[in-house]
Order: sequence, then structure tokens, then C-alpha cells
Amino acid sequence: MTLARRAGIDVGGTKCLGVVLDPSGAIVAEHRVPTPKGPEAIIDALVEVARALGGFDTIGVGVPGLVTRDGTLRAAPNLVNISDFQVGPLLSERLGVRVEADNDATCAAVAEWQMGAGRGEQELTMVTLGTGIGGGIITGGRLLRGGNGFAGEIGHMVVNPDGIACPCGRRGCWERYASGSGLGRLAREAATAHRLDRVVELAGGDPEKVRGEDVQKAALEGDAEALAVIDEFGKWVALGLVNLTNLLDPDLFVLGGGLAASGELYLGPIHHWFTEYLYAPHLRPHPRLAFAQLQEFAGAVGAALLAEVH
Amino acid sequence: MTLARRAGIDVGGTKCLGVVLDPSGAIVAEHRVPTPKGPEAIIDALVEVARALGGFDTIGVGVPGLVTRDGTLRAAPNLVNISDFQVGPLLSERLGVRVEADNDATCAAVAEWQMGAGRGEQELTMVTLGTGIGGGIITGGRLLRGGNGFAGEIGHMVVNPDGIACPCGRRGCWERYASGSGLGRLAREAATAHRLDRVVELAGGDPEKVRGEDVQKAALEGDAEALAVIDEFGKWVALGLVNLTNLLDPDLFVLGGGLAASGELYLGPIHHWFTEYLYAPHLRPHPRLAFAQLQEFAGAVGAALLAEVH
Repeated sequence: MTLARRAGIDVGGTKCLGVVLDPSGAIVAEHRVPTPKGPEAIIDALVEVARALGGFDTIGVGVPGLVTRDGTLRAAPNLVNISDFQVGPLLSERLGVRVEADNDATCAAVAEWQMGAGRGEQELTMVTLGTGIGGGIITGGRLLRGGNGFAGEIGHMVVNPDGIACPCGRRGCWERYASGSGLGRLAREAATAHRLDRVVELAGGDPEKVRGEDVQKAALEGDAEALAVIDEFGKWVALGLVNLTNLLDPDLFVLGGGLAASGELYLGPIHHWFTEYLYAPHLRPHPRLAFAQLQEFAGAVGAALLAEVH
Repeated sequence: MTLARRAGIDVGGTKCLGVVLDPSGAIVAEHRVPTPKGPEAIIDALVEVARALGGFDTIGVGVPGLVTRDGTLRAAPNLVNISDFQVGPLLSERLGVRVEADNDATCAAVAEWQMGAGRGEQELTMVTLGTGIGGGIITGGRLLRGGNGFAGEIGHMVVNPDGIACPCGRRGCWERYASGSGLGRLAREAATAHRLDRVVELAGGDPEKVRGEDVQKAALEGDAEALAVIDEFGKWVALGLVNLTNLLDPDLFVLGGGLAASGELYLGPIHHWFTEYLYAPHLRPHPRLAFAQLQEFAGAVGAALLAEVH
């Protein structure tokens, strides 16, 4: 049975975006409000979005951080003043209906699997390359949730134990290298070592102000130094994808997040280094790489689908 | 339905060990032969073991390396002259029955899950700490196989990209640090830096000949320098377990392989460093750690159970 109207809300660092899907999966309603600070204010904002969406049969919420199977956000590095926030149960109480909740990147994975780049796949790993790295894992045609519901925190896989400090408290997490912040850092390192003249020019002349976007722009112009940074970045992305392949053996990686928008730029380096790093690369099929299709709606659409995949 | 007699054979680097399980899971027949070199000789040896086991209703084989879903061993770093070896289909042809095949560590995971330390668990990750590191993953109460059947190669998760060279062709694989070989290497580094007097004495006076066993022995005597090496080793084990927790969120880790025999020695350091490395350790349940129970029979018992879990 496909339900008539499925609502989902994605709680981001800056906005709460809600949608309603019709039985075909089309978005038939949409509402957004700024994300306020603190748990009570967030619940109020979610109630406001839910009401603005009109009626619905099921509702789900995606939130950044560790979400338990019963819908409690245990810890959220990127939301202010939040820990042990019972977002699912509290919203359920206010709305008078059951509310499913899960991690926002997990929601994005569900959305791409059910309605985006991964339709029909049984073995899919979603990797969102944004400020950090989020993830979601589909295996055996089901969402991998783990004992507590915390599975898929792929950005905090340590790939360099003496490496860069991470806000999570450890060093060398994959997201310090292979995210948008990682690209910016690689670029600033190269710029302060006087290896990125054109990029520094694009950034207004200050090597400390170089951002990932400047590197992308120079690389698209064909600037060799910028392309070298992109290659180094692709190496870090590939390293993590190979680790995930060793563990999960997916048929498909769906790459999402801000960096996926200019993903074509990274595909060559990622493929090259993936083959370099993979064990016995000539004796096995390689997972395919696809870019996410649902863009900013992925989290909300996936939240709307939680009732069906949990 | 539980089948009457289930046969399983574990193909190791030195021996092929076969067992038959009765409906209760008890081992009612056992046979072993040395592992010969080359695919034809291995098939002959497997036929010999199968015949010596007497009659059976189903049969499975565990082999080291990447095993496809249809039973082909694609690549095997630790078997001589083996690649693209159709062990399942070839043995099936010789025996006239269907043969299930899978990776040996995956078989061990299945055995511990069904009949050992992980009975009744839905979310379990097995880690075999031997010469290398193997693994097997149970999630949602099912064996995680991946698209090709290659999932669970946890030993080749890169945790230090500029680190020690691995026979797999890359650098810094987890098994270079957290396996028996890793312990030996850590000990020899400390010994050649004159930090392990008692251990060197136990090894006969030559720092280059120090082995993991010597460190274990000195540590059990209470030698502080040996205990420091055990602590460093436990840190590497914990690092990988935290990565696996971030990805898979298991309720239970089952630790097997040669090192598990003196596992009590490592438990303290592993727990300590696991808590150090985990994100938000105070806000979440930690996975339990248990030691494997089926010892040298785990691979063969798991192979015997493949027909039921594939």
C-alpha cells in the first residue's frame, strides 16, 4: 500500500525544510523556516512546518547527529545546545501522530535509493560530501541501521590517527580530508606554500582566504596547480571509498552534498586513485559512482519515506 | 527444517579441516589433510575430506580471499598460485551436490553468530586477529555479503595512508597494526630502541627476533615495558573497532583468531582506547566485546551453515 500523503522535514543547520509526497513520489507541498536554537524552539518550528504542509498520513524527520531507533537525537556536533533531544517522541506528542526520525544523511540515502540515483539497487552506499561527510548504507535491499540506529557515520572513520584534529574530539577523521572543508584546507596549504597563484588571485590575493570554490573555478579554467589540488583531494575521497568497499562491497556509491554539484571535476581523480588503492582491482567489478539527484530535497524526501523503510 | 547432516570444510594456509554437524549443531565427524598447492590439488584434497566425512545433506567451503556469490575465489593473497578459482562450482561437479562457498572469516562469523559467542544477536561484527585481520558482519539479523560477496574485508581498511606497506599493495592497512604481525612489529620497534629488556631476554637476546608471544609472556609477568607495547597495540585495535562502530553500530564484537587466546591481556587497553576514540562516548551504549568460542573449528562450522544463511 502506498500512502496518500507522506510528509518529511529535514532539520538543517540553517533551515527546516518540509515536503509532502503524493503516491507517485512527487513533491506536492513544501514549506521552510529558519532553524532556531534549542530543543523547544526546534519542536515549535517543526510543528509550524508540519501544519503549513497541510494534511498528511505519515511524517518523518531528519536531524544531524546520532539518532536512536526510538527517535532521540543523542548528540549533534553541529546543532547548538542539543543532546538527548527526544525529537521524534516530542513532535509525536504535539502532532498526535507517530513520527519517524533518523539521521539526515541516512534520510538522503533513503531518498536517493527509493527515488533518486539509486532506484532499484540492493547494495548502495551514499556519501554526502559537504562541510563534513555524512552517509547512509543500504545492504541486502534494506537500510542498515545498526543496534542503536547510529550506523552510517562514515565521516568519522579515522584514516590518519596523527592527522588533523576533528570537532568530534579525535584526529584524522575522513571528513577532515575529503569534505568541502578538507578541500579548502588542502588549497590553503598549497596557497601558503606559493603553489596556487591563479587560485590566490581568484580569492582576492590572500592565500589564507582561499576556498574550495576558488580551486574549482581555477581547475575548470585548466590551471595545472589547481588541478593538482583536485587530484590530491580525489585521492582522499578514493581512500575512504575503498575502505567502504572493503567493508560493504556496494554496487553503487551515490555522491551527494555540496561538492557533488561540481562532481565531474573530481570523477577522474577519484576513479584513478580508487583503482590504485583497491585490492586486486583487475579481478573484480568496481562499484559504480553516481551523483545524487534530489539535491536540497533529499533529506526531506527521505524523511517522508522513513515510515516505509524503518 | 534443520537438515540431518551438514558438512563444512575450512581451507587454511596449512590444512583443510572438515566437519559434519548433526541437527543439534554438534560436530559428529571431523577430518583434516594438509593444504596442497594449486587449484586442482586443492579440489582433490576437498573431495578426499568430503568423502572421509561420510554422507551429508549440504556442504559448504570456507576459503581465504575474495569469494564471489557463485563460489569463485577471485583473489587470495595467502594461497599460492590462486586466482579466479571456481572452488564452489568445481567441487560441486566432483561431488554431485550444490556447494556453498564464502570467505573463511565470514564463515567464522556465521559460526560464532549461530553457535558461538554471538548466538541470538542481530548486529554483530566478527574480527579475527591472526597473522592478518579478517572479518564478517551480521546486520539486521542477516549476513552482510555485498554486491559481489566480498563484504567484510575489514583488515584492509586503511588507517594510515603513509604507513607500513601491506602485501595487498597499499600502505597502512589496519591489519599491519592490529594483527599478530602488527604486535610483533611494534615489539621489535620498541626492542631495537632498547625499551624491552625483559622481552628481548625471553626472545634469546636478539631484538630482531622478538615475537608477539614474548611480549605477551613478559606482560603477564607484569613487565611495564611489555605492558606499554600491549597498550599501544590495544590502541590500534580500538581505532579500527571505533571505525567499524561508526559505520555499522554493532551490539557485539566477537574477537577471534590467534590473539583472542590471550585476549584478557588486551581487554583493558582496548576498552580504554575505544572510549577515548568514540564520538560522544558518554551518550551512547558501547558495543560489547566477547571472545570467539569455536576456536579452530569456527571456519569449518560456519562453512557447514552457509546453506542456511546465504
